[in-house]
Amino acid sequence: MDQRISFVTLPVADLPATRRFYLTGLGWEAHVEVPGEVLMIRTGQHLVLSLWDRAAFSREVGELQSGPGVPPLTLAHNVATPAEVDEVLATARGAGASVVQPGEHRDWGGYTGYFADPDGFRWEVAWNPGEIGRLVLPEEG
Amino acid sequence: MDQRISFVTLPVADLPATRRFYLTGLGWEAHVEVPGEVLMIRTGQHLVLSLWDRAAFSREVGELQSGPGVPPLTLAHNVATPAEVDEVLATARGAGASVVQPGEHRDWGGYTGYFADPDGFRWEVAWNPGEIGRLVLPEEG
Repeated sequence: MDQRISFVTLPVADLPATRRFYLTGLGWEAHVEVPGEVLMIRTGQHLVLSLWDRAAFSREVGELQSGPGVPPLTLAHNVATPAEVDEVLATARGAGASVVQPGEHRDWGGYTGYFADPDGFRWEVAWNPGEIGRLVLPEEG
Repeated sequence: MDQRISFVTLPVADLPATRRFYLTGLGWEAHVEVPGEVLMIRTGQHLVLSLWDRAAFSREVGELQSGPGVPPLTLAHNVATPAEVDEVLATARGAGASVVQPGEHRDWGGYTGYFADPDGFRWEVAWNPGEIGRLVLPEEG
């Protein structure tokens, strides 16, 4: 089994709200869209974020964890400078993010903040000055 | 905000068990490893899977959802043929996957199955004959 993630799939309660957040709010483009079922967004050269109706997700994968608290994952969007972290967090706030944790300098040397999408899924917006931080940035140009 | 995911971070209860599953079991390689804290695995050209100690995750991100049920995400590993789906599911079983749902033909034309890692995080192993299925496969050679 190669070291590859092809899709990240998240169950969503209200697909129109998800659509408004990612497409209208953040300005992202759908690659595949089936109203009421699924919204797929290309988030890498060989990577797709799939936002799937929660009921359909549970029928195939299993009954979902529920209750209060943060969903057990974060997706990080890395950028090249601390200033861009603040800019992206402001964009997310403008798009209607339900929670925004402002950027903070972290012990490991980076600067990151978080926002939540309509289902509470946390995105970390990160500047990471280390080797792995450079590795995840797309090539220029 | 560009359409990019740089890291997928999952909180894990028992990092040594996670290490045994992904590194010893699946044969993957760590890119960064801090024992007791985090294990980072490269899962794309500009993508990293970060398996982070659950207590540290909660301190930074917030108290986690808990209770029974499936965590609200899947990661998919796409392959080029249905036979490879079965092969990867067998590899996961051999690595000690806690749950394996055998491959099934899906209404949308693909063939997929699931396995669970030590924290119950579901990986979908998928053959997708459509356009988006080809898009997520790495180039040959």
